[in-house]
Amino acid sequence: MEKAILVKSEELRDYCQRAFVKFGFDNEDAKTITDVLMAADMYGIDTHGSQRLEMYRQHINKGFVKVGNKPSVAHETGISAVVDGNQAMGQVVSKYAMDLAIEKAKKSGVGMVTVRNSNHYGIAGYYSQLASKEGLIGISATNSFRVVVPTFGKKPMMGTNPIAISIPAEPTEFFFDIATSVVACGKVEVRNKKGINLPVGWGINEEGKDEVNPQHLFDNIMNREGGLYPVGGSSQLFGSHKGFGFSLLVEFLTGVLSDGTTSNHTEEDGMMGICHYFMAIDPNLFGDPKKITKKWSTYLQEVRDSEKAYGQERIYTHGEKEKETYQERIKSGIPILPKTIEEMKSLAKELNMEFGINI
Amino acid sequence: MEKAILVKSEELRDYCQRAFVKFGFDNEDAKTITDVLMAADMYGIDTHGSQRLEMYRQHINKGFVKVGNKPSVAHETGISAVVDGNQAMGQVVSKYAMDLAIEKAKKSGVGMVTVRNSNHYGIAGYYSQLASKEGLIGISATNSFRVVVPTFGKKPMMGTNPIAISIPAEPTEFFFDIATSVVACGKVEVRNKKGINLPVGWGINEEGKDEVNPQHLFDNIMNREGGLYPVGGSSQLFGSHKGFGFSLLVEFLTGVLSDGTTSNHTEEDGMMGICHYFMAIDPNLFGDPKKITKKWSTYLQEVRDSEKAYGQERIYTHGEKEKETYQERIKSGIPILPKTIEEMKSLAKELNMEFGINI
Repeated sequence: MEKAILVKSEELRDYCQRAFVKFGFDNEDAKTITDVLMAADMYGIDTHGSQRLEMYRQHINKGFVKVGNKPSVAHETGISAVVDGNQAMGQVVSKYAMDLAIEKAKKSGVGMVTVRNSNHYGIAGYYSQLASKEGLIGISATNSFRVVVPTFGKKPMMGTNPIAISIPAEPTEFFFDIATSVVACGKVEVRNKKGINLPVGWGINEEGKDEVNPQHLFDNIMNREGGLYPVGGSSQLFGSHKGFGFSLLVEFLTGVLSDGTTSNHTEEDGMMGICHYFMAIDPNLFGDPKKITKKWSTYLQEVRDSEKAYGQERIYTHGEKEKETYQERIKSGIPILPKTIEEMKSLAKELNMEFGINI
Repeated sequence: MEKAILVKSEELRDYCQRAFVKFGFDNEDAKTITDVLMAADMYGIDTHGSQRLEMYRQHINKGFVKVGNKPSVAHETGISAVVDGNQAMGQVVSKYAMDLAIEKAKKSGVGMVTVRNSNHYGIAGYYSQLASKEGLIGISATNSFRVVVPTFGKKPMMGTNPIAISIPAEPTEFFFDIATSVVACGKVEVRNKKGINLPVGWGINEEGKDEVNPQHLFDNIMNREGGLYPVGGSSQLFGSHKGFGFSLLVEFLTGVLSDGTTSNHTEEDGMMGICHYFMAIDPNLFGDPKKITKKWSTYLQEVRDSEKAYGQERIYTHGEKEKETYQERIKSGIPILPKTIEEMKSLAKELNMEFGINI
């Protein structure tokens, strides 16, 4: 793999903002989309940051994303809503839906919002964090293109179906953002670029057998034939049915509860059809929020301080790595692969705007 | 391992009911406890059925369980509550708490109830199913004795921390009931009895190294030194941090939100201190429940009908195995190990009652 180039975060942010305005989004929507991408880049979730610009470009050009469309409420109660994304950009839809969940939680203690007819929404954790920044417990989940197989199946019937949960804590918020597949697609791509075989247990090929060749599995994923295993791998020996169950749960919360699309029916009829789920909970429902945060923070510290496994020096709780990467990248910049830089230059040309990033 | 003996379910139910009455529980509490144990036995979750009588006997005799105590509400809103278990039997506390969550969900759309100062509550899925039997979505989780290590840790800081989710579906309800550890403790015990080594990735010993000897790991678990890995195993390669995160989430929902005890502080001060979380959601919050159930059932059927991996003949969705085992055991009886039969005979003697099971 070629060496990444360090780019200043303000310059990258400015580039993204300008690009999305050029695509036709208003300033506010462009800011929302940029914010989500930048959060991924700043947290070190590089697969979901600005390197995804090329994917979004394709989704916009193919008409999956309808630029300028806005989400609307299809069904609503004091503590819940179903939002129709109206094929708007996933980030725009999702910010709207989570804000609605937060508003309900502040008023009624809890807000649960499901979303249909949306698009790829970036990192799940961006939205759960919108809630935790307000002192609430935040949950975010989404289905996606079909790339994950059921336990004992070979046809992808679920998406990577991430679940993110953010809970206020000191000194570092609990920030849990995971795919319910054994790994994210990006991990296979990285191994492919490096030319390293995959371990048995990441994915299955079109013949229904374990696949260790990264190019082959990547093609499987792209062709929606074979795909990734759920967390727990291929068999019940390590809990494949557990990851499978969490993945089905995400399909229920997103595609089913929104009267939308399950992952096996995405990319049909010229629509992406991705669905989301957002939830915000006010800790006041259970007592004094300060006391709850203190107890939670104490427990997480006890976990971090507990005895280490042989050869290990540190136990990370969820959110620590992201926080440290953020602090590092504010200082040193964001590493962007040369290939992504080229894509960004080409996009600037297509959009008839300055590249504007010093490299 | 010795061959199990088939026992008629009515006889086993009658035995349990009589035993718990002899322990001093009133008829209603004895029925609740018996119901939970029988559900496990009928569903084939044998580790959590009547073979646990010996453990409950010990917990009662040690004073962890206060026979006759009843749970009480410590904090309450229209959609939430914190229940104090007052060291009553876990099943009694949990039936009470889930019933409260169901009542709130029927009235206000959702009910979230956390519980502190309780005891071992049996299978998590019994309680989530109380909700789904009423057409609601049910969630149940509990922390437990400390037996699971953090990713990169060797000291058990979490319990096996099961999560159960029940969602109405045709022809078979979605019934998801899993430990967030890679396997349940019972699986190590079974391998030990059979004399088969464990696969690398189930557990870690007191030196912080992978342990494959089942007796050694079982001792580690009993001594709370070393223990089981989270789902995903020992490293991030297969997603250990994912299981770890779900396990921490359970600690938050149970021990923290109830102002109770996290698993690393259970079994202190003569108390078990186990904490639970229960939630019920009315699908009416999101639209027509019949339409939701139909869409969910269709999707689950599509998953079951999808192409199989090489050498596999069937994809099970969660709840099918339990349903089939139930139907089988109604007809043929419940297999009980000779060792358990002996314990039950001895317990009958201790309680000065008839054994009353034909074997």
